[in-house]
Amino acid sequence: MANTYVLVHGAWHTGELLEPTAAALRANGHTVHCPTLAGNRLDDDCSRIGLQHAAASLVEFLETRNLSGVRLVGHSYGGMLLSQAADRVPQRIARLVYANAFVPLDGECLVDMVPPHYRALFDGIAAQNHGAVRLPYPIWREAFINDADAALAQACYDKLHAQPIGCFTEPVQLKQATAALQVGKSYLNCRQDTALPHSLPWHPRLSDRLGLFRYVECDGSHELLFTNPARFAAAIEEAGRD
Amino acid sequence: MANTYVLVHGAWHTGELLEPTAAALRANGHTVHCPTLAGNRLDDDCSRIGLQHAAASLVEFLETRNLSGVRLVGHSYGGMLLSQAADRVPQRIARLVYANAFVPLDGECLVDMVPPHYRALFDGIAAQNHGAVRLPYPIWREAFINDADAALAQACYDKLHAQPIGCFTEPVQLKQATAALQVGKSYLNCRQDTALPHSLPWHPRLSDRLGLFRYVECDGSHELLFTNPARFAAAIEEAGRD
Amino acid sequence: MANTYVLVHGAWHTGELLEPTAAALRANGHTVHCPTLAGNRLDDDCSRIGLQHAAASLVEFLETRNLSGVRLVGHSYGGMLLSQAADRVPQRIARLVYANAFVPLDGECLVDMVPPHYRALFDGIAAQNHGAVRLPYPIWREAFINDADAALAQACYDKLHAQPIGCFTEPVQLKQATAALQVGKSYLNCRQDTALPHSLPWHPRLSDRLGLFRYVECDGSHELLFTNPARFAAAIEEAGRD
Repeated sequence: MANTYVLVHGAWHTGELLEPTAAALRANGHTVHCPTLAGNRLDDDCSRIGLQHAAASLVEFLETRNLSGVRLVGHSYGGMLLSQAADRVPQRIARLVYANAFVPLDGECLVDMVPPHYRALFDGIAAQNHGAVRLPYPIWREAFINDADAALAQACYDKLHAQPIGCFTEPVQLKQATAALQVGKSYLNCRQDTALPHSLPWHPRLSDRLGLFRYVECDGSHELLFTNPARFAAAIEEAGRD
Repeated sequence: MANTYVLVHGAWHTGELLEPTAAALRANGHTVHCPTLAGNRLDDDCSRIGLQHAAASLVEFLETRNLSGVRLVGHSYGGMLLSQAADRVPQRIARLVYANAFVPLDGECLVDMVPPHYRALFDGIAAQNHGAVRLPYPIWREAFINDADAALAQACYDKLHAQPIGCFTEPVQLKQATAALQVGKSYLNCRQDTALPHSLPWHPRLSDRLGLFRYVECDGSHELLFTNPARFAAAIEEAGRD
Repeated sequence: MANTYVLVHGAWHTGELLEPTAAALRANGHTVHCPTLAGNRLDDDCSRIGLQHAAASLVEFLETRNLSGVRLVGHSYGGMLLSQAADRVPQRIARLVYANAFVPLDGECLVDMVPPHYRALFDGIAAQNHGAVRLPYPIWREAFINDADAALAQACYDKLHAQPIGCFTEPVQLKQATAALQVGKSYLNCRQDTALPHSLPWHPRLSDRLGLFRYVECDGSHELLFTNPARFAAAIEEAGRD
């Protein structure tokens, strides 16, 4: 069964970084798009872009290409964009797949769901960098890409972009709860993902907000897209199929 | 070491559906029985059968065949029958294996251990069907057999029976806590089992009631008996051995 | 990258029992030491030895050999010794790896972190045996080495030593929190480890005390060092590398 996937990158990432994952899905016959959304494009002004701008760019992507029956997959921060875009154009979506992704309630922003010390960290970095947040390397290496060796961890870190703080602090505006949307919902959980600490975890804390959803898990860190894109793609397919 | 296993099916299931699992155990030299218990037999009157009737049919099965040294394995609702039967005939049992199964305290019924929305759902369906509960397909597909593709999910669903609501609402009557029984106890947990949500999980919430027990886990959904009976059998054997 | 590992055994164990794990690490080029620490040596007087004596013997081991850049790996009770020794000689340590190990706060002893019934059990056994604690076999077989068959469980049990109760009841004395130490920190969690019940788990309950740390997990019981030392070594290497 060939499906249409749109993969929505997380913070500091771009669509290009999801191409190895997309390639593995395409090898199984699927059509896969990996847009880079507003806020993560070259020359974006981090002091002016927020979540709504980014979500609008995703809706525009779906509408411009007139996509329908989409398996919309969001990684991490990408879950914010899934929820916002699905609220706008549910008729284009067959299934939402949250991959260690945020699932906001109406009026929540990303930093409402992270440990307080992350919020303080992001605010401090943004204040000194015109609204641009970069993740400190030690956090990246230990908590985000814990399944890589040091060389791969550094090489991947060098590919990351700055992220506008507004993507983290601007709330979603939902006409209805994501759980009430008449689309399929899945949650994909990489078991060794400690980007959120396991004491304040992705699953089931955030996944439960989806109401009835399909749960899929596999081994891997938050950055399985780098450390094993083929495994990430297989798990996405298991989560995204009918 | 050849052992005697009795596999106790869950709600909506029959002994026949456990035959592929039994075959894998038999291939390792074990004797395996898969009785279909009262409440899940053809032409059973769902308005009249409850947990005690079903448990009595399990005790009768053990006594009629004069089985002893039994590894008694219960799946899901089957855990209710394990606890009730073990309280009646502990001398026939070498070890209890709860496979994503309910572990009731004295006086509890199955729906005391599930999310409130499941209780309301079951009550509503039973009220309209003379006491017969069927599981809605979307719940089955997303939360019970999340590791299957759509075709297998549908094919397995078509094999399910109606379940008497009395099996869910009638309490166990235990002379002593299951933890105090002088038999071995194991809990087998399929990691992707979301028949109970991971926020109200099988393990350790219910397994802890066994006191000292052996923990075994493997990949799979609540319906691993359909999606990978060989893996299910291997895990049962690891849980059931001395 | 060849590193220097020091593997610190848990209660009832000796360095010799970690030799199969060490051999697997050495096969990858690492230098590995497995000292048997005070309290677990032949003819040790269990009524007189406590945690501080044991920790001092670890510090002495590091200093006598003038080791530096050490990957210090502690299993179970060994975590108490890691925290105490790292507080004394942080300059010798590159990374701490807690393998299903205790992570004490200043002033805590081991039994402050275990279920109350274990504390009562250990106290009772020690009172009758001049301060020597042995683990009852049923607990060992079901909760510690649940991934072994009965023969291996018994054979490994026969290799265990008595442990001085003072190693469990004497507190650590830390000049600074382990989280604040300027060394790498990792937590290795064997998924089926039920030496601590999953309702009062190793991770994230105790691992969170490390602050920023790397999380690594693998299949196995608390006694993976016996049941699959090669897998244990591979996980240690993933946790211990830069």
